[in-house]
This record gives sequence, C-alpha cells and structure tokens, in this order.
Amino acid sequence: MIQTQTGAARQSRIHTAHGPVDTPAFMPVGTAGTVKAVPQDILENLGSENLGAQIILGNTYHLYLRPGHELVRKMGGLHKFMSWNRALLTDSGGFQVFSLSELRKVKEEGVSFRSHLDGTSHLFTPERSMEIQIALGADIVMAFDECTEHPAERERARASMEMTLRWAKRSKDYFEAHKHECPWADWGNEGSPKSPESRVIAEIGKNLRTLRPEPPTTPALFGIVQGGMYADLRRESAERTVELDFPGYAIGGLSVGESRPKTMEMIAAVLEILPKDKPRYVMGVGYPEEIVQYAAMGVDMMDCVLPTRAARHGLLFTSEGRINIKNARYAEDQGPPDPKCACRVCNRYTRAYLRHLFVSAEPLAGVLNTVHNLAFYLDTMRSVRHAITLGDLSGILSGHVSLT
Amino acid sequence: MIQTQTGAARQSRIHTAHGPVDTPAFMPVGTAGTVKAVPQDILENLGSENLGAQIILGNTYHLYLRPGHELVRKMGGLHKFMSWNRALLTDSGGFQVFSLSELRKVKEEGVSFRSHLDGTSHLFTPERSMEIQIALGADIVMAFDECTEHPAERERARASMEMTLRWAKRSKDYFEAHKHECPWADWGNEGSPKSPESRVIAEIGKNLRTLRPEPPTTPALFGIVQGGMYADLRRESAERTVELDFPGYAIGGLSVGESRPKTMEMIAAVLEILPKDKPRYVMGVGYPEEIVQYAAMGVDMMDCVLPTRAARHGLLFTSEGRINIKNARYAEDQGPPDPKCACRVCNRYTRAYLRHLFVSAEPLAGVLNTVHNLAFYLDTMRSVRHAITLGDLSGILSGHVSLT
Repeated sequence: MIQTQTGAARQSRIHTAHGPVDTPAFMPVGTAGTVKAVPQDILENLGSENLGAQIILGNTYHLYLRPGHELVRKMGGLHKFMSWNRALLTDSGGFQVFSLSELRKVKEEGVSFRSHLDGTSHLFTPERSMEIQIALGADIVMAFDECTEHPAERERARASMEMTLRWAKRSKDYFEAHKHECPWADWGNEGSPKSPESRVIAEIGKNLRTLRPEPPTTPALFGIVQGGMYADLRRESAERTVELDFPGYAIGGLSVGESRPKTMEMIAAVLEILPKDKPRYVMGVGYPEEIVQYAAMGVDMMDCVLPTRAARHGLLFTSEGRINIKNARYAEDQGPPDPKCACRVCNRYTRAYLRHLFVSAEPLAGVLNTVHNLAFYLDTMRSVRHAITLGDLSGILSGHVSLT
Repeated sequence: MIQTQTGAARQSRIHTAHGPVDTPAFMPVGTAGTVKAVPQDILENLGSENLGAQIILGNTYHLYLRPGHELVRKMGGLHKFMSWNRALLTDSGGFQVFSLSELRKVKEEGVSFRSHLDGTSHLFTPERSMEIQIALGADIVMAFDECTEHPAERERARASMEMTLRWAKRSKDYFEAHKHECPWADWGNEGSPKSPESRVIAEIGKNLRTLRPEPPTTPALFGIVQGGMYADLRRESAERTVELDFPGYAIGGLSVGESRPKTMEMIAAVLEILPKDKPRYVMGVGYPEEIVQYAAMGVDMMDCVLPTRAARHGLLFTSEGRINIKNARYAEDQGPPDPKCACRVCNRYTRAYLRHLFVSAEPLAGVLNTVHNLAFYLDTMRSVRHAITLGDLSGILSGHVSLT
C-alpha cells in the first residue's frame, strides 16, 4: 500500500501472515535458515531504537540441500524451524544454481546441477522450485527464472528472457494449485481455507489508517523480470510478466558485473512498466548509496549479502563511509564503529575492541560486525522512509543528511 | 562472606569494585577479552531468569601477546576495553605458558617462552605477571605459579612447590607496591587513594544483611597452592601460602590428567588448611557433576573452558546428560536442547535447528551452543547456592534433583 509518495519514491507497507514490512525495505539474507552469526532475537531488535528486521530471505538452493525442504516442512515450515515469526521471502534457487556455473546445465525443462556439498545430481524445474518453496513456507515465493549471464548477446538475452517467461507461467500454474499446502496456510481454519486469494499485498493503493487488514492465508508469488542489459528487452519482459498477473514483481539479473549506470538504466526501464500498486523488488543489491538511489527511483524491496558478508571480512559501513576494522589505525580508537549509529554494537563497543576481535579471529567479531552492518542498512532504509514522508529525498540522496 | 553453610559447603558473596559475585560461582573463560562467540549483553543475561555471569576470566598470556597489556591499560583496562562492567579475574599466565611445553623454559627468575603466534621470545616473572595483570586491571589477580606437570616424582613436586612459594612472595611484594597503578584504582578520588587495603573480600565472615560494603579501590591478589599429587605437599603448600597472607587462595595444578578421586583427595587435603573466611578457588575444573561436588566440599570459585569449548564442538550439557547435537537422532527433534533449562536458547530453538546449524558449520551454532552451556553451568551453581541455603545438598549431589 502506498502511504506516501515523493517523486518516484514510495513509502508503503506490505502485509504478510507474519507481520508487516515497511517499504522501502532492505532484506537481510539468511541463506541456510540463519542470518550468518546473528541470533534471531538480535535480528528482531538490532538497536536501541529497535532497528529490527521485519523480513529476511532464505535460499531455496541451500535449504533444499541441507536440511532438506521435506524436513523443514515436517518441522512446521521455515518460520517455526528457525524460530522467526516475522516475514520470510525465499528465492527460487535459480540464481544460486546459476552461480554454480560449471556444475549446471539449463534445458527447457529446468536446470540440472550438482550439489556443491557432495556432488550429487539434482534437477530444479519451475514446478520443483514452487514445491520446495511452498514446503519451506515463505510468505513471499519467487518464480523460477534464468538469471542471464553477463555479458550476453542480444539474441541470447532474448532467448533467456523468453525461457524465464515460460517458466514464470509454469511457476504460477503450479503455485496456484499448491499454495494451500504451505505449512501455515489457512492456520486456525483446519480443513476450511478462509480465502483462496493471497492478501499479502491486499492493501496496495489503499489508505493504511482506514484499513485493518486480515492477514493473508497463503504465500504470495512474485514474478521476475529479466532481459539482460537491453532496455527494450527489459521492457518487454516487464510487460509480459505483468500480463501473467503477479501480486509483486522482481527485477533479476542485475549487479552481475555491469556498470552502475547500466544497472540504473535497466531498473528505470522496468519501473516505467510495472504497476504502481504492486511491490517492486530489485534482487541482489547493493551498497548503501545504491539502495538509497533505487528506493528514490521507486523500488520497494532489496536484498544483498553485502552487509553480512563484508562484516565477516571486517568491512563496516558507517555514516562516515566504509572502514576496514583490521586497519592498525583503529588499534587504539576508543570511538564507536559509527558515532551516529544507535545500534547495540555502537552503543557498547569501541573500534579498538572490534579490531582486536577481528585480528584475533574471535567468533564475536563476525557477530558484532554483522549486527552493526545490518543495523546501518536497516536504519538507512528507515531514514529513506522518513524522508519520503517528509517529502524531500534530496538531502539523503546527496549524502548531506546523515543516514542514521 | 559466608551467609550460609551446609556441611562443608558455603554460600557467600564476594564484593568487588565491579559488583558482587555470589558463590559457589562458576566463572566462564574469556581468553582474549571475549567469552568466545558470546556478546557481553547476552553474558549478562543468559536466560529468562537472568542466569547471567557475575564474573569472567581473562587470560594474561593471550592478552599480553594480543592486543598487549599496555594497549589495554591505555584503553582504561580490560573492563572498559571489552565493555564488561562486572567482576574480572585474570590468571597469572603461568598455566598457559606451562601448556606451551616445548616452547618454554623454567628458571628461578621466571619462565621464558616463545609466542605461539609469531615465535618471538618472552619472559614471564612473578613481577612481570603482576605488572601485566595490574595493567589489565582485573578485580582478582592471581599469583605467578608453576603448574607442576603430571605425573611428577615427589622431589620434583616438592621443588616445584618451593618455587611457587618463592614466586608467591615475589608476586605479593610487587603487587602490594604497584596495585594502585591499576587503571581503575581509586577511581573518583583522583590523586588521593581512598584506602590502601583491598576490600575485595572485606565481608568474609560478616552478615551480609547488616553490611553495605564500600567497593574495593584496588584489585586483590590470590595465592595459589601447588604440590603435585602428594597430599602432604599440598598441605604444606597450603600452610606456607596462608602464612604469606592473601585475601583468597586458589588450588592449582589439578585436572592435569590425574583420576577424579585423586583430584578430590588433593582438594580435600588443602581445604582442611585454608582459612574458612577466605574464598577458595579450584582452577580449571570441570564437568557439571564435578563442580557440584567441589562446591559441596567447600570450594567457592571454579573456572573451566569446558562449557565454551565443548559447545563449539557441538557438545551440550543438559539436565538429561550430555548430548552431541550433530547426532542424526536430533535431525527432527522439536524439543528444546534441555527441557528443564530456562535459557534464551532453550526458550526459543529446537534441537533440530541447533543440529542443522552445527552440521552446516554456521557461526550461529557456536553462539547458541555456548550460550546454553554457560546458562546450564551458571544455573547449576545457582541451584547449588539455593540448596545450601535450604540446608540440604543431598538431592543435588545424588543427581535426583534437577540442576535447573
């Protein structure tokens, strides 16, 4: 639901069966049913002002291989399995399999690949991806797509885009027929589905203040736009994906090696086409300044491993820029990681201590660095949402206004 | 201060400049200025009933090598450096250097050794150990001792014990002359030491309810009893260490490969000699049933890496015994790690989830396993204290009463 709009940017709220998601939102990545190194209660409450995550991602590829989606289903779904009672989104497994490069083979039916864990052979099809994601029980399920490699010739990008469209249709058909099999579907109404329609985004376009939505009773399936680095193909992909009618749309296949202006050009081309009353999700981005820019362009959701992965390598994002905590200059620095940050790490620890933990390879280094980086990202998005409601994004875009 | 006594067991409270320590107490080991994998706020509050640690250990050897005691002193001491405002105890470095075996050489002056990090040569003497520990600013500082190897011939054990006694005297002389140099000594009274005497254990033998002690203004130095596995040497060591007059006494050189009955025999021999109004600390023990036994014998303080190290290897201590969480039998086990435990891990997560984290080598596995094990140990000690005040330790010793 769009509450406020400033230029192209929108401030909205997505309702899921597991609580609301205020957008623009950054979604931390919880690959294998855990946002690496962070306990769930800390994720819920990252800072003194509760900079907690409202939604996190799970990776279908990883969870399928270990512990296995059937085990997760038996455990009541991923929410229950990992004790996360807020919103969850799962990717389709397509991008992860794409990343395996030498280990995978794409056909019309789907993608065959070998497990990076034990070399066993597997096949992901649109139907299989839906089956797995429904078993995991994410609130938002992603269509199975082919992430076009970069660079790609125009004809290759077109062929890949067409495949993604055919797979989107197959994803939707399977999903609609099986979405009630998700572990929490129709909870509280044993045997009698309350509503066949997902209400995950029931409020899009309505006024939050006048509406108390009932929670959705099934997951929602988002389509994914591809088309390589060709704006016209991107537009065509967007139009034809919208024709398939999803409750939300993602833009995939970006941040795969292209320049930043190219990324923005592709996003802009697609946003022109996507319906304004549906969530728009750019997958796999990005740096703090990037996610602010995309939010300003009208993107509602983003995810990236950057804050979590960089944290484990000692890279901290702060209001003063990026700092590499292992640098000797921080050895006696008694300041907090980010003087403008209100997170529980910045409230309590010094750069000197974080540096000591990192150079000593202490496991607490990964925990604290990750908590701070996530708090910084989530606080950045909170500032963006605030700026949108104030009607002025210029400060936050120019970097002259603190992100925290 | 002894509040209650049941048989030989005592329930007391030690007052430090950084808060009280209720005894019998188990002290988690925070080797390098961090209890591995656990954020300080979680250490403070491990469970729903606040099973938090009141005191933790730092290792002089590790902190001396990295980040260096002079850096820690500049940062205001270890409390400030690691943001831990409760009690801290540092070991003398003697045991750690003893563990280096091939890399160390013992002389009358002290122990020369090579760093396990970079091979550089160093010398620990009693004076140097005091200097380092005072710079770190622990509330309780340990005398520099020689941990006698096991097995050791009687004459070797005697010679080692005599060396430890000479080193204890040197430790005390240096400590008394320099204790006011600790980073927090006489805080709030710049330039005018409030009292030259440590009050770390000022209340021993008095009634807690009638006394509101002023916090001590300097650290306290504990002596260490050695003597190998010879009861008469142990007794002699205890007598002569007590003659040196410390505010607390540790029993070192145990749990080095001897049998459990031998450990108990040595502890019993020494406890007969140690003054009843001073804290007694058995170093480096042990399993949950062990620490309960020693507490029942009249031991006040214990420390061990077992709960933290075992956690990182997937071994959990529970009221139902030890469980190896990687075992396949836990793959679909929806129960908490320990059904009788009130810690934040048992309150939220299942064995199935902890197993998944462990077999996936997720960093959260180490965090959650450690939090539970520490909560179990600290709750065990809380139960022991409660049993002492009730005047009946028989249940907890026989294992018929839940430790949680």
